[in-house]
Amino acid sequence: MFNIRKILTVSDYVTMLNIISGLLAIFLNSFSFVYLAVIFDSLDGYVARKTNTVSDFGAELDSISDVVSFGVAPAYLLYTNFESTLSLISAIIFCLCGALRLARFGILNVKGFIGLPIPAGALLVVSFCQLINNKMIDSIFAIFVGLLMISDVKYPKYPKKIFIYMFAISLILAMFGIPHFALLLCLIYAIYGLIKHFNR
Amino acid sequence: MFNIRKILTVSDYVTMLNIISGLLAIFLNSFSFVYLAVIFDSLDGYVARKTNTVSDFGAELDSISDVVSFGVAPAYLLYTNFESTLSLISAIIFCLCGALRLARFGILNVKGFIGLPIPAGALLVVSFCQLINNKMIDSIFAIFVGLLMISDVKYPKYPKKIFIYMFAISLILAMFGIPHFALLLCLIYAIYGLIKHFNR
Repeated sequence: MFNIRKILTVSDYVTMLNIISGLLAIFLNSFSFVYLAVIFDSLDGYVARKTNTVSDFGAELDSISDVVSFGVAPAYLLYTNFESTLSLISAIIFCLCGALRLARFGILNVKGFIGLPIPAGALLVVSFCQLINNKMIDSIFAIFVGLLMISDVKYPKYPKKIFIYMFAISLILAMFGIPHFALLLCLIYAIYGLIKHFNR
Repeated sequence: MFNIRKILTVSDYVTMLNIISGLLAIFLNSFSFVYLAVIFDSLDGYVARKTNTVSDFGAELDSISDVVSFGVAPAYLLYTNFESTLSLISAIIFCLCGALRLARFGILNVKGFIGLPIPAGALLVVSFCQLINNKMIDSIFAIFVGLLMISDVKYPKYPKKIFIYMFAISLILAMFGIPHFALLLCLIYAIYGLIKHFNR
């Protein structure tokens, strides 16, 4: 009756934790669960490679969970923070761009990323909203990040190990209410790609 | 800078209307937008076939938009209707099952559907919640529908034309606050598959 369980691997269960975190971010209106979702999202790829269980099903489930945690959740948090027409429109634009970014990623087979990856986009919007509570600035920023996700700007895939450790620490700090370092790291990453793009 | 626009077809824009409807259902806490999303979801496949623009990108975008409109939105409406632990758990289970159903659909290449399709699942949960306002019954029903989505029960893909017309009318009625016929049609569809499954 439930043969689907036969195709589920350990990394798929980690992906499910990503979806659950994204849903909790929405249901409980909590920024922290978006950071937790990023941790699970980073973990599932790692687990899939380590356990040699990279699969088409896993990749599909990954895209589907990413739009929940990094598309809908940040959009919802942005909208409910202000409940204005402007935040509604920018939230929709951000989530739409995220969905387009994920769909393009699903069909491309290139080294590195084209367009800012959606977890980085989500982190930017969520940490920015948490730190700067201004309807106009937050909404324009979210639209800018959305456009960066569907742009042709290239981003490196796996940064150096020291960067990954810093990133992990910044996420844990963000989960406990200190999103400054996560914002800073993601801003550096976003701007780095932009500078390289215009200096080609 | 935005080469992504070159791969977008008319049907992809219809899919985007599906995502927007799903987001509005969440942001505005409105059942009606889920029904509207089902209409756009039915339309985009039709448009893609008619304009001969069926693509991998379109299929990816479709899965991604479906989890927003038919996974997260019904789950959110179920949860916010009661804001209880039970509705939280059942909302998460429903959305998780929807995500698994979509990921499996993305990798399968079979005639007909395996497991209740997620738009039908969403319609069942949303119309049921709208008509029967009972925390316990709604939550158990959502879990049951979720399990049906990830089950091996087979469902026919394109029913007869008369059924499509009835379905379209039921959706329009549901959008205007009369979800009875949509619920009835989806219940018949869901039970039909179950009866055939156990009578093999």
